[in-house]
Amino acid sequence: MRFYTVEHGGRQLAAVLHKSGKLLLIKDFSDMNSLIEHITDEQTKKLEAMCNDDNSEGLISFEEVKLCSPVPNPKQDIICLGVNYKEHIEETQDIESFVGNEAAVYFSKRANYAIGDGDLIPNYDFVDSLDYEVELGVIIGKDCRNVSEQNALGYVFGYTIVNDISGRNMQFLHKQWFFGKSLDGYTAIGPCIVSADEIGDINSLSLTCRVNGEIRQSSNTSLMITKIPQAISELSRGFMLKAGTIISTGTPGGVALGMKPPRYLKSGDEVVCEIEKIGKLKNIVS
Amino acid sequence: MRFYTVEHGGRQLAAVLHKSGKLLLIKDFSDMNSLIEHITDEQTKKLEAMCNDDNSEGLISFEEVKLCSPVPNPKQDIICLGVNYKEHIEETQDIESFVGNEAAVYFSKRANYAIGDGDLIPNYDFVDSLDYEVELGVIIGKDCRNVSEQNALGYVFGYTIVNDISGRNMQFLHKQWFFGKSLDGYTAIGPCIVSADEIGDINSLSLTCRVNGEIRQSSNTSLMITKIPQAISELSRGFMLKAGTIISTGTPGGVALGMKPPRYLKSGDEVVCEIEKIGKLKNIVS
Repeated sequence: MRFYTVEHGGRQLAAVLHKSGKLLLIKDFSDMNSLIEHITDEQTKKLEAMCNDDNSEGLISFEEVKLCSPVPNPKQDIICLGVNYKEHIEETQDIESFVGNEAAVYFSKRANYAIGDGDLIPNYDFVDSLDYEVELGVIIGKDCRNVSEQNALGYVFGYTIVNDISGRNMQFLHKQWFFGKSLDGYTAIGPCIVSADEIGDINSLSLTCRVNGEIRQSSNTSLMITKIPQAISELSRGFMLKAGTIISTGTPGGVALGMKPPRYLKSGDEVVCEIEKIGKLKNIVS
Repeated sequence: MRFYTVEHGGRQLAAVLHKSGKLLLIKDFSDMNSLIEHITDEQTKKLEAMCNDDNSEGLISFEEVKLCSPVPNPKQDIICLGVNYKEHIEETQDIESFVGNEAAVYFSKRANYAIGDGDLIPNYDFVDSLDYEVELGVIIGKDCRNVSEQNALGYVFGYTIVNDISGRNMQFLHKQWFFGKSLDGYTAIGPCIVSADEIGDINSLSLTCRVNGEIRQSSNTSLMITKIPQAISELSRGFMLKAGTIISTGTPGGVALGMKPPRYLKSGDEVVCEIEKIGKLKNIVS
């Protein structure tokens, strides 16, 4: 299934894509976090049946709603993997010395809220080096502690696209990466969450990022260094990954920072992140 | 006022210290996060009056409750300042090169829950270098965005003691500091939150950390490099500091990591963090 959050009638509601291409509003849960945390297997099956039922009532077209980020209010800060694609290590090696580091790099970014498809990326006057990072986002579906790699994917609710927007000057000024990636509006998530069963092999999805139509990043999730089961297993040894946790799995090469000279984003630039089987996440710099 | 969270009658409740040395349970709010977020000036005054009233009813002694962390479930990850005391920069300069860095170092630690005074520090088998860090914790009382340094302290609800417990091998293995400081049970906060008005000058408090009675850290908040108003102002330029946000302001010299050879914590060690005007936070390694 493909889960959305939409604004309709002055309220934000979770919704799911019906086979007609219209949306089915979900009224059993107050929001997507609540749905992820509480949906039962039985409710999931019922919802699937409704998505495939020609006679489902109350369908609504995309034109009748405003699309939001599927998780407009992430429950906790986003957990991110750093330098998790080989070409991205190479392009940034002048700045940070990660070559030869065999362990995953984990950091977090505050996401007071997530912007969604079509929303503007804020342009802060103290950021002179605004950058994009297309990443596959993993949404944990069940509280998860000390799970093995073998069982890890069983805890995944679904997958989405994350644009890990970064203010590079702030990221490096404050040494640890947290602050330069945590500015309000710097987490874009969307357009939807695709349930794990609908993706199939998560390890072979192409992902790209285009700026004003020009391909800047183009890679495949098969090239991730730390794979998703390893990350879930390793993190869950340290702390409970609560249902609703978002893990962003790192970006491939091609970010503005890695270009000589860097080609950072400027006002009016259109950034489109795309991942196979999930969709496109488009944002424009304000 | 001095705010506590206690377990009483099978429930966790916020409480405040009465002048008799007993506790006044607060039943108007479901927990400390709710109190911090919603308490009005009028309610604060009423509570203060009750604390000083000889005839207040329903007082309860410390012996009748189990003390919890005053914020057992922090609303968001803790925001931390790194290397914010000069001697701590010097002792760690072999490991990280922060000498000469003039900007604040901000990072975050996940705190799925906080342990309180008297609770055990977990001893993970994959951590071989368990360390303590006494820090002054700042609790934001009102949503705070783009505030000036001059107005910043007006947004503070109160102050507490944080022991930023760290698994050094994990901290350095994963390069960014997030993971090695985010293990469940690695955030100790307590014993209480002291309201800002009761502290007076926040810039002149002695703070110490003792391990099995031996003084390991001994400094004064006057020696912080990035002061609290600067940190609040700077962070609030980037994102909303929501009511309930906890900022841990960095640790002075004397951590185990900085000793030659390092003297890390081991099972049974007693760690007592103390800050003038706030109290003592004692934890034992399990």
